[in-house]
Amino acid sequence: MAPTKAPDSSRRSDRSRRAIHDAALALVTEVGYRRTTIEGIAARAGVGKQTIYRWWPSKAAVLIDAFLDLAGRAAEEAGAGDTGESAPGIPDTGDLAADLKLVLRATVDELNDPALAAPTRALTAEGIVDAKLGAEFVHKLLDPQLALYVTRLRAAQEAGDVRADVDPRIALELLIGPLMHRWLLRTLPLTHAYADEIVDYAVGGLAPRT
Amino acid sequence: MAPTKAPDSSRRSDRSRRAIHDAALALVTEVGYRRTTIEGIAARAGVGKQTIYRWWPSKAAVLIDAFLDLAGRAAEEAGAGDTGESAPGIPDTGDLAADLKLVLRATVDELNDPALAAPTRALTAEGIVDAKLGAEFVHKLLDPQLALYVTRLRAAQEAGDVRADVDPRIALELLIGPLMHRWLLRTLPLTHAYADEIVDYAVGGLAPRT
Repeated sequence: MAPTKAPDSSRRSDRSRRAIHDAALALVTEVGYRRTTIEGIAARAGVGKQTIYRWWPSKAAVLIDAFLDLAGRAAEEAGAGDTGESAPGIPDTGDLAADLKLVLRATVDELNDPALAAPTRALTAEGIVDAKLGAEFVHKLLDPQLALYVTRLRAAQEAGDVRADVDPRIALELLIGPLMHRWLLRTLPLTHAYADEIVDYAVGGLAPRT
Repeated sequence: MAPTKAPDSSRRSDRSRRAIHDAALALVTEVGYRRTTIEGIAARAGVGKQTIYRWWPSKAAVLIDAFLDLAGRAAEEAGAGDTGESAPGIPDTGDLAADLKLVLRATVDELNDPALAAPTRALTAEGIVDAKLGAEFVHKLLDPQLALYVTRLRAAQEAGDVRADVDPRIALELLIGPLMHRWLLRTLPLTHAYADEIVDYAVGGLAPRT
């Protein structure tokens, strides 16, 4: 749930929100999801816990906003020119493989960035054993990302680069699944070369049969 | 590490091992990896904790053996005719897609089986945040499974069903990655139809370009 706008969304309030986000991400990284508390976040952010309860209904809600904020900042730094909470779209240059490699290489960089990786691991791990929390994160954080792949793959179908009988919602998992699996389980290094290979194999399997 | 064989590997000793495995899996499911202790496993299995320390050097070692035992029993029940700890190979009927569908459908069934799913989730979640534990499980439990895919994909290359320039170790992640991603994150139901679709898309991308 997005934080309720305070009556005067002043710079001080923005600073408090940012401090709360950072404290929440730092705590979940250090002690895990279960031992992160609203009290702990408040103490670390230097705010009263009532400030947090006024803006967010739960610890999970704080963390979801913290992740959206973090992802927004990462996109901003990457020069995506999107400073809001919505994820930047996947480019459409007409070259499906090239567009997907660009996006998957950026995903590799994000997953390898310790600032993003550690809290993402902590949250993902908790979502794996806590179905309710997992569903909330998938709905709020992952699904909007996956929707961008569906859009790009549909455009590729219209352009004739992907077969009409391919289900884009399934096809995108050929791209995302291998990356996340390798990253989560640390089976082998997650590199740009790996992302490129996955795209080449997957796109070949989705292309029209000649 | 495999348990050291007791001097007389009697039926009673086998029963104790089995009881310890079952207790370890039940505990990790109920309270998570971190709160599972050798003492807790011993109490639940009705053995002295020295019995456990005599056979295993650590809690992780007990759990790895417990998983190998569980997987062996599951394979036995599935009529794979393999009662040992080695994983059954992937069949080679000459039809790569059919062989992979068979194996991936069985994987779907295993992942959807609560007896296997709950402890697997607990262990995977812990391995995601604890790199050392994660590496141990990948090495002992996952890599032997992945090696079977490499073998089958190499045979397919020799048969001309997969391009010679495909790296089997990467290609197998197009199959395993989507299944595990969907299962771990519970994005959508994990079904036989999904496994079939993933195989069809992936195999198409690995096939020789005509």
